[in-house]
Amino acid sequence: METKHMRMSQLASKTRKEAPKDEAAKNAQLLIRAGFIYKDAAGVYAILPLGLRVLNKIMNIIRKEMNGLGAQEVLMSSLQRRELWEQTNRWDDGQVDVWFKTKLKNGTEVGLGWSHEEQMTEMMRDFVSSYRDLPRAIYQFQNKLRNETRAKSGIMRTREFIMKDLYSFSRSEAEHEEFYKKAQAVYSRIFERLGLGEWTYLTFASGGAFAQFSHEFQTLTDAGEDMIYIDHKRKIAINEEVMSEEVLELVGVKRSELEEAKAAEVGNIFSLGTSKSEPLGLQFTDENGVARPVVMGSYGIGPARVMGVIVERYADEKGLVWPENVAPYGVHLVRLGGDEAVVRAADKLYEELVAAGVEVLYDDRDESAGAKFADADLIGVPVRLTMSKKTVEQDSAEWKARTAAEAHLVKLAEVVAKLK
Amino acid sequence: METKHMRMSQLASKTRKEAPKDEAAKNAQLLIRAGFIYKDAAGVYAILPLGLRVLNKIMNIIRKEMNGLGAQEVLMSSLQRRELWEQTNRWDDGQVDVWFKTKLKNGTEVGLGWSHEEQMTEMMRDFVSSYRDLPRAIYQFQNKLRNETRAKSGIMRTREFIMKDLYSFSRSEAEHEEFYKKAQAVYSRIFERLGLGEWTYLTFASGGAFAQFSHEFQTLTDAGEDMIYIDHKRKIAINEEVMSEEVLELVGVKRSELEEAKAAEVGNIFSLGTSKSEPLGLQFTDENGVARPVVMGSYGIGPARVMGVIVERYADEKGLVWPENVAPYGVHLVRLGGDEAVVRAADKLYEELVAAGVEVLYDDRDESAGAKFADADLIGVPVRLTMSKKTVEQDSAEWKARTAAEAHLVKLAEVVAKLK
Repeated sequence: METKHMRMSQLASKTRKEAPKDEAAKNAQLLIRAGFIYKDAAGVYAILPLGLRVLNKIMNIIRKEMNGLGAQEVLMSSLQRRELWEQTNRWDDGQVDVWFKTKLKNGTEVGLGWSHEEQMTEMMRDFVSSYRDLPRAIYQFQNKLRNETRAKSGIMRTREFIMKDLYSFSRSEAEHEEFYKKAQAVYSRIFERLGLGEWTYLTFASGGAFAQFSHEFQTLTDAGEDMIYIDHKRKIAINEEVMSEEVLELVGVKRSELEEAKAAEVGNIFSLGTSKSEPLGLQFTDENGVARPVVMGSYGIGPARVMGVIVERYADEKGLVWPENVAPYGVHLVRLGGDEAVVRAADKLYEELVAAGVEVLYDDRDESAGAKFADADLIGVPVRLTMSKKTVEQDSAEWKARTAAEAHLVKLAEVVAKLK
Repeated sequence: METKHMRMSQLASKTRKEAPKDEAAKNAQLLIRAGFIYKDAAGVYAILPLGLRVLNKIMNIIRKEMNGLGAQEVLMSSLQRRELWEQTNRWDDGQVDVWFKTKLKNGTEVGLGWSHEEQMTEMMRDFVSSYRDLPRAIYQFQNKLRNETRAKSGIMRTREFIMKDLYSFSRSEAEHEEFYKKAQAVYSRIFERLGLGEWTYLTFASGGAFAQFSHEFQTLTDAGEDMIYIDHKRKIAINEEVMSEEVLELVGVKRSELEEAKAAEVGNIFSLGTSKSEPLGLQFTDENGVARPVVMGSYGIGPARVMGVIVERYADEKGLVWPENVAPYGVHLVRLGGDEAVVRAADKLYEELVAAGVEVLYDDRDESAGAKFADADLIGVPVRLTMSKKTVEQDSAEWKARTAAEAHLVKLAEVVAKLK
């Protein structure tokens, strides 16, 4: 539904030479400089039009895979009731240290959702009573608020961010395990499609009170906050936090064969067992008329964090580099000079691209070639298409992939077909 | 991107006979009973899959019109800095009585956005410096939090809701006025497309400190919180709050020709003048090199409130009634009985509708005809298509519009073409 094309003379954001001085993270520095995000405060960013295009593409890739899993989308509230979270002993700041809390006019204390496991579990009591009502999978893209003490990884760890959280509801451990395995495979495919597959490892991590392990999807990057131990052959890893002789044996790997590496968690899947359904009373009547607690799982991905990790993995010394699936536009059309024939030809190509449904960013500004090329490199659209007096005289545009060293001429008549 | 078809046996929500006892509003009662929303607390609702389909349709109608206005979509933060809002004297609870406030770990007080005029104005300082950078229009769909003392109008007034807020930035009063007029026309078209045009009046309301008037779009409904005075001929109205001899004269109407009516505000457009840009320092250099403050406007629509008003306007004694443009599905396929031939024929039609891209809700549950018809009426999809042993023997389905008294048979071979 967004506008698939944009003239840079009209774009609400601008590029800038320097990032804010207080911004330490490479991902945020580049995204701010290129006009994808705006820094409001430490750990608080606004998403600008270019950034929202990327974020929507990431979210739509995830959404499609969630729907493919048979999951149904909902949207829950930020506001959280204290008495609900007290039932699972997660209201107290000593138990959960990222709560933002506030008060209704009548003095009632309420929290702002940093997770929705409790609220989702409670809600499902209205919709699950019999074995016929299960299994179910429900997800949302919802704005989480987390009172992080420090925020220094740019958009990879913020005080507020959209999270895709999926919850599964099963009748038995076996049914849960089956869904969990499917979700695991779907997560791997999501990170492939997001361009992170090559560096992303299914990682054994702490399972909490209920399960032996949870699984994280960890992407190798120096900007990561985690240390993992990689088994390259099996493409799995162990998070440092659970590394032990016992775990090595359980996973079936030798310490000497593992490589230590820094990584960022891009996704997390978690068996909750009945740890939520029991205290919150989410149960169903089985085929024999026996009441049993629902077996649950919780599955998260932070789309903005994914965007940050993509920046960290792909960017080069000139700026952002977007994989095709998540690029804000497919082509960056750069018009050089104000020569009337060039303006006419570039406007015409732009209109043709728009008509063909190609997502195109058109640099129609009165800027120098150097400034325009620097901006194109900074913004990182996969293909740059330059039109100047010289190329137009040859009925051509200069085609340069963002990651290629060399450019080459392409006939104007062939451009649309090449980009569709 | 959502799934366009659904088997009711798999649907995460269920219908219910009774609304929660503490729910006073008709819109919320029906939406809860039909499984479109879930009530978490007073003024706090979750949007369920059926409700999210409606909400997304409403938002996409609005989004398309915003893009048509040349507005660019962004996404700002809930968290708001105190010092920003102090600059316009809107931090203090004595000035703004709907703030939710909370604290960072280091004790810094922050607010949760109930509006984004201040944050948007401040942000635009980064992107506007010259007359060449204007005009601009920027919008978002963002989760507003408002600490309402009472919440008794269902989803028409909640403590948390997605709002479409648009902001315009112009070089002069004249340029602003031109955009404002365009926005006004676009708003009228939006309410037409949402099915509310017939009962929605452009209404003169208080303009605040800067402008003589703001304009509200008020939809006639007994569930509304406002009283307006309607001029039927010109299809305009005056809000009770500004009603005076002076205003009657300014608007050019006679009191005796106006009809008093209850209405709900579904949209609001507002000239801010330089009331934000001056204190917050958003200025531009004009063609003569003179620094001038940007002239602003603010334009809101609450999609969930619109959904509530649609319910109030269209619902009948049997349940919800959705106008086609915002209906969760285009057709509700109801299979009666478990006869093998009927199941086979209904499954086949469902698959054909899915393949044809028709949005279809398929009642494949083992329920009585009475229960299924009651649910179909409650959910309110525009067309109900019933298949039973009797209709299948005639290679037909029974077609009944939600608002029609009578049903008629349609040949199965013709159904898809009729619905596409």
